[in-house]
Amino acid sequence: MSNGSIEAASADEIAKEFKEHSVAEFFKKNMQMLGLTGKIKALTTIVHEYVTNSLDACEEAKILPDIEVQIKELGSEYYEVTVKDNGPGLTKETVGKALGQLLAGTKFHRMMQMRGQQGIGAAGCTMLSQITTGKASQVITGTGKGNPISLEITIDPKKNQPKIANLAEIKKNFKGTMIKAKFKGMKYVNSEQAPLEYLRRTAIANPHAQITLIEPNKKKIVFKRTLKDIPKQPLEIKPHPKGINVDELNTLAKYTTGRQVSSFLKSEFDRMGDKAISEIQKNVSFDLKKDPRQLTWEECEEIVKQFKKINFIAPRTDGLRPIGEERIRKSLNSIVQPEFLSVVTRRASVYSGGFPFQVEVGIAYGGNAGKGNNVVNDDGLVERKMEIMRFANRAPLLFDTGGCAITKAVQSIDWKRYGVRDFENAPITIFANLISVHIPYTSAGKQAISDEIEIMEELRLALMDSGRRAAQYIAGKKREQDKKMKKELFFKFIPEIAKALEEITKKGKGKIEKNLEHLVLEKLKLEEDEEEAQKISDEIKETSKDTGKKTKENSPNEDEGLMEEVVEEGEE
Amino acid sequence: MSNGSIEAASADEIAKEFKEHSVAEFFKKNMQMLGLTGKIKALTTIVHEYVTNSLDACEEAKILPDIEVQIKELGSEYYEVTVKDNGPGLTKETVGKALGQLLAGTKFHRMMQMRGQQGIGAAGCTMLSQITTGKASQVITGTGKGNPISLEITIDPKKNQPKIANLAEIKKNFKGTMIKAKFKGMKYVNSEQAPLEYLRRTAIANPHAQITLIEPNKKKIVFKRTLKDIPKQPLEIKPHPKGINVDELNTLAKYTTGRQVSSFLKSEFDRMGDKAISEIQKNVSFDLKKDPRQLTWEECEEIVKQFKKINFIAPRTDGLRPIGEERIRKSLNSIVQPEFLSVVTRRASVYSGGFPFQVEVGIAYGGNAGKGNNVVNDDGLVERKMEIMRFANRAPLLFDTGGCAITKAVQSIDWKRYGVRDFENAPITIFANLISVHIPYTSAGKQAISDEIEIMEELRLALMDSGRRAAQYIAGKKREQDKKMKKELFFKFIPEIAKALEEITKKGKGKIEKNLEHLVLEKLKLEEDEEEAQKISDEIKETSKDTGKKTKENSPNEDEGLMEEVVEEGEE
Repeated sequence: MSNGSIEAASADEIAKEFKEHSVAEFFKKNMQMLGLTGKIKALTTIVHEYVTNSLDACEEAKILPDIEVQIKELGSEYYEVTVKDNGPGLTKETVGKALGQLLAGTKFHRMMQMRGQQGIGAAGCTMLSQITTGKASQVITGTGKGNPISLEITIDPKKNQPKIANLAEIKKNFKGTMIKAKFKGMKYVNSEQAPLEYLRRTAIANPHAQITLIEPNKKKIVFKRTLKDIPKQPLEIKPHPKGINVDELNTLAKYTTGRQVSSFLKSEFDRMGDKAISEIQKNVSFDLKKDPRQLTWEECEEIVKQFKKINFIAPRTDGLRPIGEERIRKSLNSIVQPEFLSVVTRRASVYSGGFPFQVEVGIAYGGNAGKGNNVVNDDGLVERKMEIMRFANRAPLLFDTGGCAITKAVQSIDWKRYGVRDFENAPITIFANLISVHIPYTSAGKQAISDEIEIMEELRLALMDSGRRAAQYIAGKKREQDKKMKKELFFKFIPEIAKALEEITKKGKGKIEKNLEHLVLEKLKLEEDEEEAQKISDEIKETSKDTGKKTKENSPNEDEGLMEEVVEEGEE
Repeated sequence: MSNGSIEAASADEIAKEFKEHSVAEFFKKNMQMLGLTGKIKALTTIVHEYVTNSLDACEEAKILPDIEVQIKELGSEYYEVTVKDNGPGLTKETVGKALGQLLAGTKFHRMMQMRGQQGIGAAGCTMLSQITTGKASQVITGTGKGNPISLEITIDPKKNQPKIANLAEIKKNFKGTMIKAKFKGMKYVNSEQAPLEYLRRTAIANPHAQITLIEPNKKKIVFKRTLKDIPKQPLEIKPHPKGINVDELNTLAKYTTGRQVSSFLKSEFDRMGDKAISEIQKNVSFDLKKDPRQLTWEECEEIVKQFKKINFIAPRTDGLRPIGEERIRKSLNSIVQPEFLSVVTRRASVYSGGFPFQVEVGIAYGGNAGKGNNVVNDDGLVERKMEIMRFANRAPLLFDTGGCAITKAVQSIDWKRYGVRDFENAPITIFANLISVHIPYTSAGKQAISDEIEIMEELRLALMDSGRRAAQYIAGKKREQDKKMKKELFFKFIPEIAKALEEITKKGKGKIEKNLEHLVLEKLKLEEDEEEAQKISDEIKETSKDTGKKTKENSPNEDEGLMEEVVEEGEE
């Protein structure tokens, strides 16, 4: 490393500095992009990466997940994290790619709703362990066939390749995967962004999983399985013609086994049937019997233009697996215990790239909704603040709150219209789960969802729909409270005012007080309350117009009716 | 692509799905991580990537930048972006890496304050162009030696390798680089997050650059160079011993040319002299004459432990190039025209990883500070809202506001303590520039800075320091306004109240009014004002204590005194 030169550099001199770097080196220098910096955040992210891998593996293998997380304190800011699952296990060949190579894995290229999707997370943890402690991560994994294996794994960052050591068979009965890794520069606490809260929220969104946490102080916390049926497995799906771009079509065409463009389109795309094909044929300048490998960019453009015009049926929703209205209702009622709860599951939609997604929203009001801030108000009640619980494919999102589409959608709503005057300080918990075959995260750290237009729109519609239902309840409650508060306030000051007026006017205090009470009760209270009621009622009416279309309530997983004209039935 | 199976998958079956992917494929699927999604955002990011490359190249070659950006509308949501600079140019060998390969370039491995630092941005634009239009990006570049060359470039995403076509020499005199690329799915608007505002802010932070924008409607906007001296070039620096971790030390030791650990440490680290070496030797279990390539992880740990203990002099600041208090003051005064302006440049500090950084903050209050929201208030004045202008190494940050350390630092301040009661709606512009040899961005899109503890602390100290100075001004102004408003308010209602009291008390209205006026002027006004003044004064005193240490005002680029005990002088 030179000490730097202050001479002006020529193109040739600058050229000497050109170097190439591996993706592992890039993320090693930018651990913050993986959510692996910050003493508390890093520890939560580690737990998140291992646990989501376990849940995904169990789901794919149709196993009811039983996951144990143990965090041991080895020294100051020095911890060992062990995550053990009862999943399908890893083979000798796959363990290196799963834990010792970035951008390798099963998830990146599949159109399937999974928690992980990048093939970066767990390998990033392996790297973090080795750069903070110099130690390898230990793995024991058994697939049910043959003996389980144990091994130690690190990454060579310059090559982005796994290094496996001490590979051995062990003579025990074990099916599943156990990862044990050490990390320095961490801190285990009990806060809103810490492992315990992360696992609590994971349990809320995954009632079929049994999750155990053993804390550094040996305390064992078990989130019991409350539902014994394995959720239907998400399906790997084909891209929907809406939202596919020319480059993607062009790339798919080069690798297809179809002999004609028409059969290529039918086999590679969701909702593509004979009617659509003949509609396309009518409007493009070439014969769809053509070899797809011979398609030019311009011809692909013609096809995509037709994709945009045709009213295809909405994307398959049977590939997506929402948590479901009833399960969310049950979870929130049992954990948040609100006075009022409104849950909306929207139907599936699609965002650019042809990725289907779906939004589930719950608004819980009153009771224990919102988060307590340990401040006691004048009425002796603990003040509560609005809380947003964000999930992506059922995995909780705890960080980068401000940058997330869910937060932005919540903030974009004018909550006053729904009768919530001071939204930030209202006893409200907003639950939102976005599911998709590909969540557009803002960063490789998967902490926040990018604000794609279509996703924002669906989130807003769900929030407004849910908000409308809550508004009726809130408005009534608010009116009652206001009436009470106003009366109390005025009556509290009447004696003082009367006393002051007595001085000014030299009239008797008793008479003044009576007159004031009359004034308050008759004039202020009645008139203002009527006005207020009218205003809220007007606002609710106006908001209903706002959403643009009438959304059918309580209708998750229904296929019909998203597009106004369905010209094409897709085949299964 | 299969239609998905709902059979349970075994480890072997899952193993078949394991694949490896290139970093180009990863970002191609996750363009949002590069800031290259969203019609407006993508266009601004494209301009950002090309312009920062131009500014960096000019800076390194000691050239006063003259940059022309032209955006042409080719069709609906279809644009051509051309960026031409007068920089040092690219050679045949480097142009492919600079524009056609991700994670290649001069910036990633150098400890040097540059706008770009990843080797991803411009190559990401090449990829975006080809996947939205199918077209290559055109480049003309001349280095001053021989004829300029022209060529077309695309990326092979599967290999992350450049593909160059139509390479030719051209017989014109041209030194610099011109890139012309086409993009679909964009929208040129004139908003706070659009190219024009981006370039305006770039001009604020780079007064030595001449920047021209030709808008799609052919309108030409020139941000003139206001300062003709080239800013001192940032130096490539060595890592500071504070903040280096064991892994980094271990890696450096493996590649050093030093023969002994002692000479290795002295040549590879900033501020490392003989005194520090002998201090380390006293406290480690091995001889520093040892071959550095033979250092074990545990020995590296011993050394890093000593690094933490020794009070090294603060990192070299001559590698960092703040904009400077006077330049910021001039820029903000000319553009924001505030009533009051307070600018603070903190001294350099270091965050984990051994990266020096420095913070510059300006608070502009009143006048045209803040952003207008087109709402006219009761006094007939346009209401203004608080505005944050964020910069990293002089490049404006327009997106992911909520997730950025600068925003978080601003929000963490209790502005009431500085006399600003309703911060969000105050006429305030907060300017903040973070400079560093490595900005810890939250994502490869470089839109927001990660909230590293040390950076947050410095930002907070700068904001508080700057805020304290503004507070005096604001408090005085506030008191005056409050007095005026209160008086006006009370006097407005006195006739009405007097009338009401006349009814209640049956006394003469004239006398009541006089009594009320007396009451307002004497009791309310005087007492409350005194109380208020006392309160603000107390708060300011308390806040001063808050910052923990007395910061010297107006002292950018001074080396002395950051550490209490300096046991070691670094050598140049």
